[in-house]
Amino acid sequence: MAADPLSNKFAALADPTRRAILARLALGDASVKELAEPFDMSLPAVSKHLKVLERAGLIARGREAQWRPCRLEPEAMKEVDAWLEEYRRVWAARLDRLEAFLARPQEEAVAPGIRKPRK
Amino acid sequence: MAADPLSNKFAALADPTRRAILARLALGDASVKELAEPFDMSLPAVSKHLKVLERAGLIARGREAQWRPCRLEPEAMKEVDAWLEEYRRVWAARLDRLEAFLARPQEEAVAPGIRKPRK
Repeated sequence: MAADPLSNKFAALADPTRRAILARLALGDASVKELAEPFDMSLPAVSKHLKVLERAGLIARGREAQWRPCRLEPEAMKEVDAWLEEYRRVWAARLDRLEAFLARPQEEAVAPGIRKPRK
Repeated sequence: MAADPLSNKFAALADPTRRAILARLALGDASVKELAEPFDMSLPAVSKHLKVLERAGLIARGREAQWRPCRLEPEAMKEVDAWLEEYRRVWAARLDRLEAFLARPQEEAVAPGIRKPRK
């Protein structure tokens, strides 16, 4: 796994099973057994995914030996969200430019030097 | 690389150099040479990162043989953003619950059966 926390988070999210586990945990805490059922996976396989998510800080686990519920850490996702914020601004700016272009009068929108054909 | 497009995107983002390349491209298109300079990296090393970003759909490259400018594809980031949307709702809901709890009158906030000490 990469060294920096944000890379760890992106690497943990780069797997459909791990994203499905997070989606399940968004509904409420769950044990490893409860998480394993819908995926038809072995407990060790699920445990391995949970370790990746836990190391990335995306989930936390209870301390009880028998019942160690997994819990989503939505605050950790904020780091990912903050990183995306810059790109949201980039695409919003592009959309603004496109709208401004489309809002121009038809004559101006034609490239300079090219005359519109007469009707 | 994983098979699904969203996993490909997250895997491509799980590297600080690739995220720095995207940040540079958010300012404007750039050639491989221009991208290599600030990172003190060889052109083949940068090209390798660009291939990962291109395969994930996060950037596109011009067709000209000599000058193949790299361009950010901010629309691709929307898929990542849409995935995050669910978790934004989860943490907003948690914050609402916390605020509602903190807004309760002081007497009620004390656990039932525990009397506040008299002053």
